[in-house]
Amino acid sequence: MPDTPASESNDPASGNPLTTDPANQGHSAEDSRWMALAIEIAARGRGKVEPNPMVGCVLVRDSQCIATGFHGRYGGPHAEAEALANCEDARGATAYVSLEPCCHHGKTPPCADALIRHGITRVVISVVDPFDQVDGGGIQRLRDAGIEVVTGVLKAEGEDLLASYLKRVRTGMPWVIAKWAMSLDGRIATKTGESKWITGPEARGAVHELRSSVDAIAVGMGTVIADNPLLTVRLNEFAKIQAATNTPSVASHDATGQRELVRLVYSRKRLPDLGSRLVQTASETATWLIAGPQIETADLARLADHDVETWQCDSDDPSEMVLQSLRWLGSNNNPRGLAMTHLMVEGGSQLLGSFAAAYQIDEVHAFIAGKCIGGREAPGPLGDPGVTALANATSLRLSQLDSFGNDVRLIYRR
Amino acid sequence: MPDTPASESNDPASGNPLTTDPANQGHSAEDSRWMALAIEIAARGRGKVEPNPMVGCVLVRDSQCIATGFHGRYGGPHAEAEALANCEDARGATAYVSLEPCCHHGKTPPCADALIRHGITRVVISVVDPFDQVDGGGIQRLRDAGIEVVTGVLKAEGEDLLASYLKRVRTGMPWVIAKWAMSLDGRIATKTGESKWITGPEARGAVHELRSSVDAIAVGMGTVIADNPLLTVRLNEFAKIQAATNTPSVASHDATGQRELVRLVYSRKRLPDLGSRLVQTASETATWLIAGPQIETADLARLADHDVETWQCDSDDPSEMVLQSLRWLGSNNNPRGLAMTHLMVEGGSQLLGSFAAAYQIDEVHAFIAGKCIGGREAPGPLGDPGVTALANATSLRLSQLDSFGNDVRLIYRR
Repeated sequence: MPDTPASESNDPASGNPLTTDPANQGHSAEDSRWMALAIEIAARGRGKVEPNPMVGCVLVRDSQCIATGFHGRYGGPHAEAEALANCEDARGATAYVSLEPCCHHGKTPPCADALIRHGITRVVISVVDPFDQVDGGGIQRLRDAGIEVVTGVLKAEGEDLLASYLKRVRTGMPWVIAKWAMSLDGRIATKTGESKWITGPEARGAVHELRSSVDAIAVGMGTVIADNPLLTVRLNEFAKIQAATNTPSVASHDATGQRELVRLVYSRKRLPDLGSRLVQTASETATWLIAGPQIETADLARLADHDVETWQCDSDDPSEMVLQSLRWLGSNNNPRGLAMTHLMVEGGSQLLGSFAAAYQIDEVHAFIAGKCIGGREAPGPLGDPGVTALANATSLRLSQLDSFGNDVRLIYRR
Repeated sequence: MPDTPASESNDPASGNPLTTDPANQGHSAEDSRWMALAIEIAARGRGKVEPNPMVGCVLVRDSQCIATGFHGRYGGPHAEAEALANCEDARGATAYVSLEPCCHHGKTPPCADALIRHGITRVVISVVDPFDQVDGGGIQRLRDAGIEVVTGVLKAEGEDLLASYLKRVRTGMPWVIAKWAMSLDGRIATKTGESKWITGPEARGAVHELRSSVDAIAVGMGTVIADNPLLTVRLNEFAKIQAATNTPSVASHDATGQRELVRLVYSRKRLPDLGSRLVQTASETATWLIAGPQIETADLARLADHDVETWQCDSDDPSEMVLQSLRWLGSNNNPRGLAMTHLMVEGGSQLLGSFAAAYQIDEVHAFIAGKCIGGREAPGPLGDPGVTALANATSLRLSQLDSFGNDVRLIYRR
């Protein structure tokens, strides 16, 4: 942990923070640098704290970092509590927190109260928490206690880190990550449907890593029929990747095993065969089915007998099915009893196209292989009707770019 | 220019080269490092020396570089002559050359003779020149003069640099660079054909840079009709890119203007309108037309009246047309009277598909934008029939990966 951010000592602004409380814009270059550290630390909770937000906290006094903390697991201590526990005396310090401190009793006591009690005199916040039990209440409580509060520092960076949490809190729906593997000429299979494998083992290992960080993986019936997939996290099959990145091989995010990767099947009209690998393993690995309204109740009951959780939409429209299912998954009313934050859609092009048509693709992980498949009839990744005018195409911004041998991964986000 | 390669001084192998002439494998780690420098220097001639090969030469004595040289322009001095001219006394030195020295009188005298005359005692070569006027003859002449010769040092790297030259010499056909811009979901246009613009100005500037380095740009009639393109190098429209890379704004590679970018139209059945921008500017910018056998001679004559050079294939098959035209372009019988080394195919999907079907795509520059277009009917980059089995898909290896704002460029090569 660095005591001071890079280039701190040469900065003429340091020691002269332009804080003009209660205006939200009053912050210095030093504030931005400490906040960058708080955001960086917050990211360590990725995949472990959901449905809670990732939060980082840095305590600074006399331009020196005296302690840091982050929210490390769902149900565990919050970032502020961790940071306060990591120093003997926080009196007179400034707390940099990537998200507004909470003011409600959840699984832990309110962080705003803890900051007040430990004698923090200034709190710098990146993102105001839109969660209805906070939503400015934490800031108000701090100000009522005479603490100087600045908000909106590195707001874009903070919101980028918290994008999935913010979407769920604001819309009630999980963040949707569309994953596909395609050839250099944009095909996800040959014209006869052969798709194993477009990319090599390293890229496929990265997919299993991604699976291990989300709440659920969704596929459509076309994929279930064509591939009879298992849809589990099998990082041990990709041990080299696992060793290199130190990713845990299970998806559950805390010691109690509360979170478990859910396999999700979208069945508009057809249902998976009872002998399929998904149904056969449903007693071991959670398997939920989103059914269209035309599917018979008796057929759903047969799947339920095999431990498949079923949930029926009241609309047959693919986009409407996507929206209804996302609201259900993002609520505490799903069978897990805990809102989902990250849904990964693995295909095929019909289902991915339905998510695209519903404007619900928030992030794309496109794996591109050094192969040319060709063929006017070979499918592309999105099977929706598509736009006619380029101006109406969904725009995404480049977030990450890397390669695995001859395969490339492009990560784009809204 | 460094006097010694990196980490040279600490290498136990330095000063003890394992040369066991005439075995080709006898070379030391020091040899590899000097050859890497020769190959790096050779690349400075890219786009300026064609149809000659890029060549670099490094002269080394007592583990010190005493001079370097490279072939800098077509008709100009060769790398060896440049290096020899750059030092006062080369006696006893080792010459590292990325390509076998020539032994014939072309535009310049034979380099093998110059090396002998200047007292070089050892020559280390990466690639043996398959050009029929050399093809081992340079090596033989050196050995006959008692010079120790080692070949095959960094052969893979040397062949990679010379891939386009080697293809033309071995097959008589130019190296084909396929360029396309597509959405993240692999579409080059919307279902109604809108394609302007998929990528942003920075990426399009990179395309004009690429145009400025090739001999010809090819398009099919679909593109001529849909876009009425100009197909010139307009780097001044992308001044920022130009300033950053110092790329010349003209395609000719020497002071005499001998090379000029040629615009090439493939017309299997339809011909460009006499009022099209290509035909209207044919008197200013070279415009050649590859015609299918069904096209009437009188129609071709009308285009010739507008300064379009026409050449008719005797086959109607798209792949066969590609192969016939490449042999013509790669020979000295084309209207320029000088073999072409680099052909860039810009589209559309029909023409790119014909090159793919003929297995004549040697390099791909795929530009990918942060847009999702969708649509089962929106075209992909390759309109050929395509493969049915993935094992038959053309495999390419990743050569370069970079980004321009939200656009990504993937360069793959055979």
